[in-house]
Amino acid sequence: MIGCPLPHVEDDRVLLGHGAGGRLSAELLDTLVLPALTPGSTTATGPLEDAAVLPGDDGLVLTTDGFVVSPLFFPGGDIGALAVHGTVNDLAMRGAQPLALTVALVVEEGLRLSELGAVLASLGAAARDAGVPVVAGDTKVVNRGQADKLFITTTGVGRRVAGLSPSAAHARPGDAVLLSGPIGAHGTAVLSVRENLGFVSDVVSDTRPLHRLVRELAPLGADVHALRDPTRGGLAASLNEIARDSRVQVEIDERVLPVPAPVAAACDLLGLDPLHVANEGCLVAFVGRDSAARALRLMRSLPEGAHAVRIGEVTEGPPGRVVLRTLVGARRIVDLPLGEQLPRIC
Amino acid sequence: MIGCPLPHVEDDRVLLGHGAGGRLSAELLDTLVLPALTPGSTTATGPLEDAAVLPGDDGLVLTTDGFVVSPLFFPGGDIGALAVHGTVNDLAMRGAQPLALTVALVVEEGLRLSELGAVLASLGAAARDAGVPVVAGDTKVVNRGQADKLFITTTGVGRRVAGLSPSAAHARPGDAVLLSGPIGAHGTAVLSVRENLGFVSDVVSDTRPLHRLVRELAPLGADVHALRDPTRGGLAASLNEIARDSRVQVEIDERVLPVPAPVAAACDLLGLDPLHVANEGCLVAFVGRDSAARALRLMRSLPEGAHAVRIGEVTEGPPGRVVLRTLVGARRIVDLPLGEQLPRIC
Repeated sequence: MIGCPLPHVEDDRVLLGHGAGGRLSAELLDTLVLPALTPGSTTATGPLEDAAVLPGDDGLVLTTDGFVVSPLFFPGGDIGALAVHGTVNDLAMRGAQPLALTVALVVEEGLRLSELGAVLASLGAAARDAGVPVVAGDTKVVNRGQADKLFITTTGVGRRVAGLSPSAAHARPGDAVLLSGPIGAHGTAVLSVRENLGFVSDVVSDTRPLHRLVRELAPLGADVHALRDPTRGGLAASLNEIARDSRVQVEIDERVLPVPAPVAAACDLLGLDPLHVANEGCLVAFVGRDSAARALRLMRSLPEGAHAVRIGEVTEGPPGRVVLRTLVGARRIVDLPLGEQLPRIC
Repeated sequence: MIGCPLPHVEDDRVLLGHGAGGRLSAELLDTLVLPALTPGSTTATGPLEDAAVLPGDDGLVLTTDGFVVSPLFFPGGDIGALAVHGTVNDLAMRGAQPLALTVALVVEEGLRLSELGAVLASLGAAARDAGVPVVAGDTKVVNRGQADKLFITTTGVGRRVAGLSPSAAHARPGDAVLLSGPIGAHGTAVLSVRENLGFVSDVVSDTRPLHRLVRELAPLGADVHALRDPTRGGLAASLNEIARDSRVQVEIDERVLPVPAPVAAACDLLGLDPLHVANEGCLVAFVGRDSAARALRLMRSLPEGAHAVRIGEVTEGPPGRVVLRTLVGARRIVDLPLGEQLPRIC
């Protein structure tokens, strides 16, 4: 998947792109992280999922995520709510409902207590809204200039919904590819405030929990093959990961891809591809062809899935490839983004 | 416990001491964190433990900890091993053996990949040594100057050893207070390299996993009332927390307190109280009086408990108070340290 060796490793330094969810992230994981933590294993030994099944109890799943978004508050959300939603959603992508969260803070000395309080209030409200308790936490403070205000790591434990066992490795030829809502809002919203782009002031982050949407799909059972929320690296990264881990080709149709007009305009101006922009409130679902219509009906029955659409299917073709049928009928490869388009977006 | 209002809150800024495990940490937790995350509850509603029991399954416990130690490598350890030991030990203090860990990294752009690789190798080795798999992870990269090299948050899930249910609230009058090994080494070792104190070069961190020591105590069952590893805030903080949560008075004896000579010398020079210095490889155990001798024998059967000693007992007196009988026979109150003596020590 990664192709020819990237030049960046020879620099022997961590780059922003190593944290961006694209090819550099995958390379760091393959060459440094996995060999250290699980010697003898690589991505070749199994799919990389959003959450791991707990050893000895395959009903429980576990996930962790660090949040470093800047600024702390952005249109439609803040780092506190995002830290809850991101972790709840990673659990949900394994078919699980959240049981408990932990929260670890790294705070820069000098942060206003009122600002920290506002973030924590939002985090607490988001957790209550998602129906999950925060059961443990930790706070570290570092000197001024040794962190940027506040980083939050949330970890979640969830219980899988009976009958659901989606995996990035379970997509199959013939599957319908469904998207629960429009793409590109989160990344564009964060960038708009960071770069003071007044003209995109009508774009707000889509940050929201998706576990109820997943629970709604429970009646489809094993026909729900793969679920992923397209955060860092955007829809392009999620589709590429599923195509790689399931060894299938994925084709999507640009004509039905829901990109809100203000998002499209902002991306156009900034030279961003909406397929690469992070989302925090939609999911992509690979379901058996015969269940597609029912899955769409179920998703549309909830506000967070009201705009669910079918965007493509799994087709015959080289495994690991994602193809976009463009507006003019051409076909182009959708690559994993190389590195960082939008640093500190989540 | 906290006494009169501290002036620092009016400054409306986070201080280094808010992360130090002392009175400022307790105040931040009580006034800001807990009200936001669990409205209506305060510390008064229950003890603060090192790890939380998972809702719906009281055999499983969950804990999280951020590690920001500087420098990344210090005598006797590094941030990677420390991140494993700290979390394994927090599980162990609830009587649990580790089942799974997650690891979330926040990396500063520009960190040498070789340095990151060395930390991860050490983390992986420590996890294997402790017999616990790393099942999920996350990596975020922030721009140069927005973090100091590397922060690691580890979260652990553990299963309680049958019969063990220690809690900071379970200490009782008459209990013996046991300490598994000497105190003060970790904080002194980190400080020695950070401050280039060559004369303490023979002090190495005690960082090590303690879950086997706790498992060894299983035959004592419910006679193991409280366990705590005295990390941030040192032994003073751990004893104060147990005295507060169990509403008992704790008395310890300076004559038997194991402070290695080089640690004592360094603390003397630096104006530190060894009781306030962080440890990463010893635990304090409150056990029923009649089980004390057996507990010591069991602890001493393992290398990590070879130097276990009885340092005191729970006595009649004002609840929440910790008293030290000094070398000259006087008695002094051991307070929770106010704030930060040693920033970024873990």
